[in-house]
Parts: sequence; C-alpha cells; structure tokens
Amino acid sequence: MIDIIHRVGIKAPIAKVYAALSTIEGVAGWWTKETTGVSKPGGNIEFSFSTPSGERIGGFTMQVMALDRNKEVHWRCTSGPEEWIGTDVMFKLSQDGDYTIVHFGHRNWREAGEFTEHCSTKWATFMLSLKDLVETGQGKPAPNDVKVSNWH
Amino acid sequence: MIDIIHRVGIKAPIAKVYAALSTIEGVAGWWTKETTGVSKPGGNIEFSFSTPSGERIGGFTMQVMALDRNKEVHWRCTSGPEEWIGTDVMFKLSQDGDYTIVHFGHRNWREAGEFTEHCSTKWATFMLSLKDLVETGQGKPAPNDVKVSNWH
Repeated sequence: MIDIIHRVGIKAPIAKVYAALSTIEGVAGWWTKETTGVSKPGGNIEFSFSTPSGERIGGFTMQVMALDRNKEVHWRCTSGPEEWIGTDVMFKLSQDGDYTIVHFGHRNWREAGEFTEHCSTKWATFMLSLKDLVETGQGKPAPNDVKVSNWH
Repeated sequence: MIDIIHRVGIKAPIAKVYAALSTIEGVAGWWTKETTGVSKPGGNIEFSFSTPSGERIGGFTMQVMALDRNKEVHWRCTSGPEEWIGTDVMFKLSQDGDYTIVHFGHRNWREAGEFTEHCSTKWATFMLSLKDLVETGQGKPAPNDVKVSNWH
C-alpha cells in the first residue's frame, strides 16, 4: 500500500487546529468551501470542488471513522474517484513547543500513479492552507486553492 | 522502500524546465541559492542551507547518476542527514499540451518517519518554487523558501 504523508507545524493551540479539522465550518476554510454533512463518528461528509465560475469538477464522500479530541481525525473515502475509494485520510496532532504539529496521511492507495503524485502535491498546498487558516484566519480552500498544474 | 512523489505542471517548453533541473544556476534558482559543483554524470553537487542571517543549517551532496536531455535528471545522495544517504532524487519530464509535467520522486527511504513527512511537504514547496522560477523568472530558493513548520 502507498501512503501520501506530510508534516506542518502551526503556531497555535492544539484545540484550534483540531476545530479546523473536526468541524464542517473548519474544513470548509482550508480544503473546499463546498463542504457539507455530519462530522461525527459514523457520519458522512461531502466535499465538492468547482471552478471559480461554478462548474463542478468532482468530489468525494468521506465516512468519519474517528474523532479523538485534540489528537486525531480519521476519514475513509466511500465515493469519489476510483483510486480514492477505500483509502484513509488521517490527521494526527502533537505538540512541539509553541507549535501544533499535524501529521497527515492519505493512506492505503493501491498504486502510486500519476494521480497519486498530483494528490501528494495538492495535499501539501492544503496543509499549508490549513496553517494559514489557523494562524491568520484566512486559508485557500477550493475554488481559491493553489494551482499546481494543468490538472488544477 | 518509501517514496516521496509529486507532480507539477509548468507552462513552459520542456527545454526550459530541463535547464532549471540540470544546471547549477538553474537549481540555485529554486532549491537553495548555495548550490555548487559539477552537474555532469558522475559529478557531485553540493547543496547547503543557511538561515537568512547566514547561520548554516545543513546540506547534502548528490552524485549525478543520469542527465537525459529533456527527459530525466537523477541524483543519489552521498552525504547529508543519515536518512537521506543512499536515497535517489529523480525528476522525469513529459509533455501535456502547453505544459511540461515534472514527475518528482525522492525514492528509497528506508522508513517513513516524521522527517520523511517534513521532506514530503518541503519538496512540494520546492516543486512550486521550480514552477514559479520557470514561469515567472523568480523562484523561492532557500533561505527564502516557504516555511512549513518549526523545522523550517
């Protein structure tokens, strides 16, 4: 199995980072503005992506596998691109001095293809969007996300 | 073995992207300003990193394993942090319409630790720095690189 992993350090209390990962409003502030659903264990969250002009590009449904306050958020993809279905998205939090560390993993890809490469780069930009959101109040969620290629 | 992978698309001719990867001056424009050595097969390139105030943080030596014009650049780490020694850094190029696609791999890590997570995120920022350099003439090489955490 192939894992995409990242690490960012956010100069903020762990509870503030956890809120940005464990609530619909929080995630809408750094990943995609079009985030809806129920962020509770067993609940489903829908993430949609559109162009700035409103044309739908795609989306994912994630089932919430675990919410462990100030420690971990764990989702499993149940619908979306075929490569994503059954994969796990996990955010583990730790403290290092003034920083909350986010250990990110998008785990259990079946192969490392070109789409995996793309998602790895995009996840880095979204983790930096999370950092910006928590530190400054303003992230870069889709459709205002950082474009890394012809694939957005 | 663990691989860090990324994909960026750069709106520029493939030869321009290859030059930014295969010459000392090119790499100094997106990874670290302190890049010296010989970019020829079998040659060694030294990459050093300092703080903006000039304090040395660390560095790497890479042996050039392959330079395949407009197709691939391949380095192997021969000195630096223990986790990096023996790992391979590879840039493979392809064309997709107006875009040159960079398929990046930092391959053959022995384990996926916290330092691997950090390097994955940093490599994404450096691939976007490469994109900026080629598209706009201005990258963000160290010491002006994007800071992702308390580890820089």
